[in-house]
Amino acid sequence: MFNLEKAKKEVPFSRESLESTLKSRFFYAPAFEAYGSVAGLFDYGPAGCAFQANVIDQWRKHFILEEDMLEVDCTMLTPYEVLKTSGHVDKFSDWMCKDPKTGEIFRADHLVEEVLESRLKGNQVARGLLTNADEQAAEDAEKKKRKKKVKEIQTVKLEDDVVEEYEHVLAKIDGYSGEELGELMVKYEIKNPGTQGDLEPPRAFNLMFETAIGPSGQLKGYLRPETAQGQFLNFNKLLDFNNGKIPFASASIGKSFRNEISPRSGLLRVREFLMAEIEHFVDPEDKSHPRFKEVADLKLKFLPKEVQQSGSTVPIEKTIGEAVATKMVDNETLGYFIARIYLFLVKIGVDPSKLRFRQHMSNEMAHYAADCWDAELQTSYGWIECVGCADRSAYDLTVHSKKTGEKMVVRQKLDEPKEVEEWEMTLTKKLFGPKFRKDAPKVESYLNSLSQEELKAKAEELKTNGKIVFKVEGVANDEDIELDDKFLKIEFVKNITHVREFIPSVIEPSFGIGRIIYAIFEHSFWARKEDTARTVMSFPPHVAPSKVLLVPLQNKKELTTICADISRALRKEQIPFKIDDSGVSIGKRYSRNDELGTPFGVTIDFQTVEDGTITLRERDSTVQVRGTVEQILKTIKQIVYQGVAWADATKELKTVTPASEED
Amino acid sequence: MFNLEKAKKEVPFSRESLESTLKSRFFYAPAFEAYGSVAGLFDYGPAGCAFQANVIDQWRKHFILEEDMLEVDCTMLTPYEVLKTSGHVDKFSDWMCKDPKTGEIFRADHLVEEVLESRLKGNQVARGLLTNADEQAAEDAEKKKRKKKVKEIQTVKLEDDVVEEYEHVLAKIDGYSGEELGELMVKYEIKNPGTQGDLEPPRAFNLMFETAIGPSGQLKGYLRPETAQGQFLNFNKLLDFNNGKIPFASASIGKSFRNEISPRSGLLRVREFLMAEIEHFVDPEDKSHPRFKEVADLKLKFLPKEVQQSGSTVPIEKTIGEAVATKMVDNETLGYFIARIYLFLVKIGVDPSKLRFRQHMSNEMAHYAADCWDAELQTSYGWIECVGCADRSAYDLTVHSKKTGEKMVVRQKLDEPKEVEEWEMTLTKKLFGPKFRKDAPKVESYLNSLSQEELKAKAEELKTNGKIVFKVEGVANDEDIELDDKFLKIEFVKNITHVREFIPSVIEPSFGIGRIIYAIFEHSFWARKEDTARTVMSFPPHVAPSKVLLVPLQNKKELTTICADISRALRKEQIPFKIDDSGVSIGKRYSRNDELGTPFGVTIDFQTVEDGTITLRERDSTVQVRGTVEQILKTIKQIVYQGVAWADATKELKTVTPASEED
Repeated sequence: MFNLEKAKKEVPFSRESLESTLKSRFFYAPAFEAYGSVAGLFDYGPAGCAFQANVIDQWRKHFILEEDMLEVDCTMLTPYEVLKTSGHVDKFSDWMCKDPKTGEIFRADHLVEEVLESRLKGNQVARGLLTNADEQAAEDAEKKKRKKKVKEIQTVKLEDDVVEEYEHVLAKIDGYSGEELGELMVKYEIKNPGTQGDLEPPRAFNLMFETAIGPSGQLKGYLRPETAQGQFLNFNKLLDFNNGKIPFASASIGKSFRNEISPRSGLLRVREFLMAEIEHFVDPEDKSHPRFKEVADLKLKFLPKEVQQSGSTVPIEKTIGEAVATKMVDNETLGYFIARIYLFLVKIGVDPSKLRFRQHMSNEMAHYAADCWDAELQTSYGWIECVGCADRSAYDLTVHSKKTGEKMVVRQKLDEPKEVEEWEMTLTKKLFGPKFRKDAPKVESYLNSLSQEELKAKAEELKTNGKIVFKVEGVANDEDIELDDKFLKIEFVKNITHVREFIPSVIEPSFGIGRIIYAIFEHSFWARKEDTARTVMSFPPHVAPSKVLLVPLQNKKELTTICADISRALRKEQIPFKIDDSGVSIGKRYSRNDELGTPFGVTIDFQTVEDGTITLRERDSTVQVRGTVEQILKTIKQIVYQGVAWADATKELKTVTPASEED
Repeated sequence: MFNLEKAKKEVPFSRESLESTLKSRFFYAPAFEAYGSVAGLFDYGPAGCAFQANVIDQWRKHFILEEDMLEVDCTMLTPYEVLKTSGHVDKFSDWMCKDPKTGEIFRADHLVEEVLESRLKGNQVARGLLTNADEQAAEDAEKKKRKKKVKEIQTVKLEDDVVEEYEHVLAKIDGYSGEELGELMVKYEIKNPGTQGDLEPPRAFNLMFETAIGPSGQLKGYLRPETAQGQFLNFNKLLDFNNGKIPFASASIGKSFRNEISPRSGLLRVREFLMAEIEHFVDPEDKSHPRFKEVADLKLKFLPKEVQQSGSTVPIEKTIGEAVATKMVDNETLGYFIARIYLFLVKIGVDPSKLRFRQHMSNEMAHYAADCWDAELQTSYGWIECVGCADRSAYDLTVHSKKTGEKMVVRQKLDEPKEVEEWEMTLTKKLFGPKFRKDAPKVESYLNSLSQEELKAKAEELKTNGKIVFKVEGVANDEDIELDDKFLKIEFVKNITHVREFIPSVIEPSFGIGRIIYAIFEHSFWARKEDTARTVMSFPPHVAPSKVLLVPLQNKKELTTICADISRALRKEQIPFKIDDSGVSIGKRYSRNDELGTPFGVTIDFQTVEDGTITLRERDSTVQVRGTVEQILKTIKQIVYQGVAWADATKELKTVTPASEED
């Protein structure tokens, strides 16, 4: 019996061979190649585009349909104010260093990483741990692909403590601030690797693409860096659509943008990319999940922060049930989504042995996040973050609500009325109009949005100073506003409430579709040991770009007529297929489609003319069976759409031995 | 028998009522409402988003799958050079007028149109043809919706010849240049309608959103105004993917952008919109289509340019076969796509009586276009262009090829070798290196891209002056380059060729998905005459956002358990459904889902507990039938996915009389 896992391991993986296949079969290509192309921009060709569409279709079914999520489609153009509030204007940046002489610009963390790595390699060569030639060959290939800045490895031996220091820095490279990176560059004498010229200290470069909306040019906007903000801003409408009940989730599939300083690594770091994001709104006091028990026994590989802090990268394997029970994963809802992410990735072709969940370190995580795990996929570029799964707490709704004065809360009727002691502010509204005129609503809305802690502080301020002082953006030229106790009272009172009002927490699974797709390309790709030029993309049939290749043995009328009949039948069943009636040999035609990942080939030959039977070829094993058109179509449908295994779906069909494919 | 067409006409259409439904059921909403929103930007909520996804799914099946098109997904970010070459940098603009005092900006053609229309209406009132009050009421409602600039109608009688002149201008309003609009504004004393202040003369405002790519800020880019350019630039790769054969078509679905001066009319004029575009590459000498005969007998409504020139708007009805035979429509391929567009639009819910094909007038059409027809849909805003179908000739491939030096041609092996007389240039290559150094390839590529006519002209220049003079962008500071006959020879020679080489023509059907969706909203919307507050969206079942509403009669365990079982069955069949187990009456729950366009309702009642049967309610007629779960699911599947009619699918089921829905 053919064993795919075994076959995949027989010829060592070659990224160069994969990239040549992806290019020649037009899975994707650099955009605007005729114009010299632009780094970080790629177009998907027919094969890549169909694969992407199938992945998205599976995502919709696995998440949106299965969990009854509310899908929205929000604009990419986003006004400045929204992203100022979300924190992106101030914090969504990388550190860049400029060479003042050449004008070259480097991404600081990548430069430090590359230089130290190259010194460590030079050290290994100097110590005879690597031969210079081996190393250089590997490095050359690497350089070509990743456009590395460091072109040459210097064979210089390093002291043991320096090696240790470098390794320590590299382990924490994602966590340094710009200032720290600048200090490292001074300390380790890191310069422009091409010219050895001095670099300016790192400065922040905001990664959002900026544009102006409308003819006056005065409304500044950005292309969204994530789809999440649009979902948050529609929270009240979505809650209403859901009849006021939580938990519920919104979801969105669409392009986002990131103006990378110096994109490299092909599809893994691009400036325009497809995301699929879920915002699951949940009661912060009850993050249990009703379907958690369905996944609790699923075993996953975890890399929790404690393990990373200890310097290890060996994952812990346990069930998601245990992970939540031991509080390694913060709560059931987060755990449920981690498990669902795993099931999705494996379903669409990720190799489970190359998938782990890594917890964010405290210094990586946004200050408001309660917990965060990345699904990382192993590729020839290393372990790559492909899905983030974060508990963002109530941060986003809180800041937008505060900024706009629009309450974004859930109101739940209590079973029994409850007595609560709380700070309450009463405004003497009739004084606000005369004092603030058209700005009165803004001031009132600001005051009404104060939290309990803020009210307590203001109450003390009022008591001590007889007035409170505050600012409201856009009012009184953003200067201090003072109000005394004629304008307002703040008291600690007992109230009876029938309603519990709260801002929900958000659990956010966020998928980088392009990265996942690239990882699946690597996980699916292999070469036949009989002839390593014959490569195969072993996509699962339900995500393969096309399902069937129709091949008339020769370009003769009696065969092409039957081919047209079968085409109509496939079209009626909505099974995507291609015809290859080119003059080249059957073997070549199949081989071309193995590279496209087409799971099935159907040959129409002279026996078909006689008895109406056709052959069905399975891509990976190249095994062929023979049956009537009806039988073969049924087999294809069962395997592609009902998940039936090849052996089961073909057990009533006759295996045939075709002529050799190697020609 | 219930008659939908009749029911739809019983209550007059109200745009206000439609918009209130679209808003309350969250089909879409202005984006960033909490931040005061931005004109021309809209978010689709769950209902709109699902509807949009279904329309796209149908589009993929109707065009891409059915015709085996090559789908691509290209970047939205587009470098300056590409859009300079395509003509968008110079020509993709509207005319805007600024009021120097107030800073207000008006779109010139819209302003002239509005002012003249309001004067014509004022004249009608003055002549007693309209009462002022009627007119004002209609106008007020209109103004609110479209944010018209003209707030008030002046009751002033106009001379007959002035009326005629205004009407003449309005008929041609889409065809004026900026200068002509400026002249009209002077002639008719058109000023800022709010203040009566003078306006500056119209100036061109480019409608593309500009941004900078990369950290240096020096690579200028735009957000694409159409998906077409990405498809053209991938032509060679696509041709290769198609084994070098034409005709073939590429297709793309994605967002494009247009920085409208002053967006209005809701979803009809927005700044970010979903397009679906096809580029069908065809032999310019043979634009026949193999499947044309399948559609030749389809009767359509045409508004050819001659009819429009005569001042009429009464369409001609004839078959597409006749239209092509009489050359009214330029060729079979264009005709084939016009017919396929019709079939698609009707399939997804466009009212065929509100659909016409209008030919572009000569002054509307790009100079290179051979013919162009718009599918226009009638809405309360008038007839709206929703799909363009143009023969763009070989324009785009030609300009990109010329600019980049990359040949974009089809090569066909001739059955017999052919003698051709042609101009041929021979370069003395060894002289180019020393003279032009690194620019030598650019100069050679420029010279090699010259057409036969250009070579002829250059041959004469060389003969007359002993040298040729030309410029190449980026070479010799863009100054004149001179080459004498030592560098090149140009001769008229006889060659034997085995290959025919040509640039294909492009037929481009281009769909504005948002506009089509809005038109379908209008065409599908009606109010029940028993209670006009109960409105219905009669979407065809296969595009309806959700297919089934599950309603347990009461919130009792024995009912909700069955409801969960049916949910599982629906999920397994991948039929999108919603459950409404809220406390409100059955009638309210159905009514809410009539507004969402959900075609079926399933009630679980106490009889279900006894005998396992459930009721199935049809949205438009409100008729209900009763059957087993298996029978009802089969019925739903047949109607939604196999296009079976309600009467046929339910003929074995018992019609039941439910309690009144009006509560």
